[in-house]
Amino acid sequence: MDFLITIDDTSKSSLHCQIYNEIRQAILSGRLRPDQKIPSTRMLANSLGVARATVVISYEQLLSEGYLKTIPGAGTFVSDQLPEQLLQSTATPISNSPKYLPVQLSTYGQALMGSELCVSTKPKLPSSIDFSCYGKPAFDQFPSKLWRQLLSRYCQFNQETLDYPNNPLGYKPLREAIASYLTQARAVKCETDQVVIVSGSQQAFSLTSQILIEPGDSIAIEDPGYLDAQQIFQTRGAKLLPIPTDTSGMKVEHLIRNPNMKVKLVCVTPSHQFPTGTVLSLPKRLALLSWAEKVGSLLLEDDYDSEFRYTDRPIPALQGLARNNSVIYMGTFSKVLFPSLRIGYIVPPKNLVDLFAKAKWLTDRQSPLLEQQALTEFIQAGHLERHIRKMRLLYDQRRQALVQALKQYLGDRAVIMGENAGMHVMVRLKTQMSDGLFIDQAIKSGVNLTSTQPFYLSTERPSGEFILGYSHLATEEIDKGIHRLAQLLESWGALLH
Amino acid sequence: MDFLITIDDTSKSSLHCQIYNEIRQAILSGRLRPDQKIPSTRMLANSLGVARATVVISYEQLLSEGYLKTIPGAGTFVSDQLPEQLLQSTATPISNSPKYLPVQLSTYGQALMGSELCVSTKPKLPSSIDFSCYGKPAFDQFPSKLWRQLLSRYCQFNQETLDYPNNPLGYKPLREAIASYLTQARAVKCETDQVVIVSGSQQAFSLTSQILIEPGDSIAIEDPGYLDAQQIFQTRGAKLLPIPTDTSGMKVEHLIRNPNMKVKLVCVTPSHQFPTGTVLSLPKRLALLSWAEKVGSLLLEDDYDSEFRYTDRPIPALQGLARNNSVIYMGTFSKVLFPSLRIGYIVPPKNLVDLFAKAKWLTDRQSPLLEQQALTEFIQAGHLERHIRKMRLLYDQRRQALVQALKQYLGDRAVIMGENAGMHVMVRLKTQMSDGLFIDQAIKSGVNLTSTQPFYLSTERPSGEFILGYSHLATEEIDKGIHRLAQLLESWGALLH
Repeated sequence: MDFLITIDDTSKSSLHCQIYNEIRQAILSGRLRPDQKIPSTRMLANSLGVARATVVISYEQLLSEGYLKTIPGAGTFVSDQLPEQLLQSTATPISNSPKYLPVQLSTYGQALMGSELCVSTKPKLPSSIDFSCYGKPAFDQFPSKLWRQLLSRYCQFNQETLDYPNNPLGYKPLREAIASYLTQARAVKCETDQVVIVSGSQQAFSLTSQILIEPGDSIAIEDPGYLDAQQIFQTRGAKLLPIPTDTSGMKVEHLIRNPNMKVKLVCVTPSHQFPTGTVLSLPKRLALLSWAEKVGSLLLEDDYDSEFRYTDRPIPALQGLARNNSVIYMGTFSKVLFPSLRIGYIVPPKNLVDLFAKAKWLTDRQSPLLEQQALTEFIQAGHLERHIRKMRLLYDQRRQALVQALKQYLGDRAVIMGENAGMHVMVRLKTQMSDGLFIDQAIKSGVNLTSTQPFYLSTERPSGEFILGYSHLATEEIDKGIHRLAQLLESWGALLH
Repeated sequence: MDFLITIDDTSKSSLHCQIYNEIRQAILSGRLRPDQKIPSTRMLANSLGVARATVVISYEQLLSEGYLKTIPGAGTFVSDQLPEQLLQSTATPISNSPKYLPVQLSTYGQALMGSELCVSTKPKLPSSIDFSCYGKPAFDQFPSKLWRQLLSRYCQFNQETLDYPNNPLGYKPLREAIASYLTQARAVKCETDQVVIVSGSQQAFSLTSQILIEPGDSIAIEDPGYLDAQQIFQTRGAKLLPIPTDTSGMKVEHLIRNPNMKVKLVCVTPSHQFPTGTVLSLPKRLALLSWAEKVGSLLLEDDYDSEFRYTDRPIPALQGLARNNSVIYMGTFSKVLFPSLRIGYIVPPKNLVDLFAKAKWLTDRQSPLLEQQALTEFIQAGHLERHIRKMRLLYDQRRQALVQALKQYLGDRAVIMGENAGMHVMVRLKTQMSDGLFIDQAIKSGVNLTSTQPFYLSTERPSGEFILGYSHLATEEIDKGIHRLAQLLESWGALLH
């Protein structure tokens, strides 16, 4: 009888595992046929020179999994219950191409397949000055020690905190703290049970798009605007209507002038338009709200970095001005604290709260509890407010250093926009260089920056517009970086003349 | 001039905030009209008896927000840029009914609206013995101290760990640890870059349904089966085809006998069918794989508590037997560790990995880093394996206590199913009581348990079938609980005769 089993004494795998695997493979590959008799445990143990108990363990496992059967008085056999056609020695070749799928993807799956992820892959020199990270907090200023203390306080796990959460809206004390913060600091009208804890802005956009958007629906979106939001809505099949912006934010008149345009949702960043940095003026706010009410449209207010306003107090949220259920408000702790925390919030109109709660529950139940607990105390004890105040001062210094350097080194070759708020500014540079060339040359000079071109939906993408993130950079670095960019522009200008 | 401002000295709000709010409200309510002149800062300061600087701050904010305008030499006025029709004294009444929405919901949103969340709301007596929590780990046995140590180790935040993650698949060392664990412990065929970290099983189901399911698609699902999965697919518009189960798991022959039935996805729990507890037999596994390959269908293998097998070694995963890209494998740490951790994993076929990564990225970027780091070391240092071994012994004792109590107190009035694995058993009780009545009576006796009826898709829902979760209960409690149930059945029987 052909019953060849190889045992490898040097293997890390136990003897009974090896025997089990060998016999299993022999059956699956067709080397051992259905109903074929196999040696008794005693015989196999003798021939392999191992303890009989070892072979018994292997056989028992194979029996329990259905590979073998015993016939009392006759011995142990390969099962005859295994479909013949499956026991082949050659496997079908596998194609790993995503185009070769056994089933058709959903409309969303197909859209995903055609989309590119916005994960930055630009090379960075080790010592480069990186303006290309916009909205990046000054991590060295984060109160890590305090945060660690808070986390360890809530690491005292108990029955309740280890278990499934019982509220799809999120940890209630955190929702209370956020509701109170938003009411006071952002003039948002909301109650505790209107706040839904989500895993960052990303999930706020994702849930909103799932609940509201049917393929073909129209969404008005600022142009230029937040790329990730564009992508989330596009992969859901939405038709994006680019609305241009000017120095007072989104050109709301574009919506008002086209009353026949059926717009389901308007994505807007009223406190600090991304990326131009402008503030949506009060007349425009009121006109937008009035228009939404009249035509029956929803507004999605992304209040991503509104805490940082330097020349006056933060502008109250658009949501607080609304007199009906027309604004979905969202915010994140990625900018004021840190992104890997993955906590943000949505304040939907009251008649949508239940839907957001259900969608969150079916998506991932709830965000991890530990971080929610630590964050609650961080807010309640006043640390958030203090940290924001401290960061506002720091970012203001950095902002001033940036503006000054731009004026000093570039003069009228740079127009600065949106410098009164946020964590980045936008500049328009007077140069003959294409954006791609300028960025590549800048990288060689040890400076990274981002063109606004990918943020435009319309085909007329201005050239020479760049986003400069400064919040994470020391004033000396900022100065040095702008100096280098100025030198680059000069040497290029000299080259042309 | 009517210019009434009330200042509340006892308010927590600062003076300049109060002045700002009063004027803003007066403008928004129409009490102050466009182009109306307002007092100079000096006049208002005098009349209110506050410092002029305080009024200046308020006016500056109102100017920057566009409520006021200054005309040089003439003074300060209410802006004339505010749309007249918005400045009304009465607001439109707001309806908070979810049926009164300005926009139409997506198909998904509408399905959500009609669905009920499976959040348990059954009353529990303080001292009750709760068999109704199935799959609940023994939290008192969780190595909290060790976990706390690991968390504090990774609380040493730095620039990199505070920032956005850069890989949509998840933290690489964790994916390595999971790939190695799955290969060794579950015989799953996978590479590190095939593992996608998700926020628990829930998100695995959610992403799978989004990527694959188009409304109207057919999904074969075990009947009875996992309720949450049913709900996730139903809300995506899938048509669920209930496949009955028997003592060797899902009746695969139901799929094979209907070759014209176009099934996109089959949800299956091969290691431990939920809730019956049976194991999908090897012939059925092979037949299912062969069928899927032939008709071009995908299998979603939910391996939720396969680590706990008591009478023999854990049954290897179905995925490891597949010879083509037909199995999406998923698992969770909710059962072996704890649910509020919110970490699970999907191992899609290689040609679907990129799509799952993109979907995760657009959904919430990545799960929080801290937990991923702590879990990595927990696995790498061998703690996971040790903890599973320890829990397997403990749950085995509890399982034996349950089986013994059922036999002792109920004898042939109870048929026990699926007792060789997992964290719950299913029992069929011989009783005339309806499930609802039995559960209500049990609650009064201080025992909670779950009927299987909600887990059935087909209309023929057997009565008298219950799920008993035992993993979190001490042996004495288990014994006491079953004793109480037996007494309940007896007294009810006596009542009838």
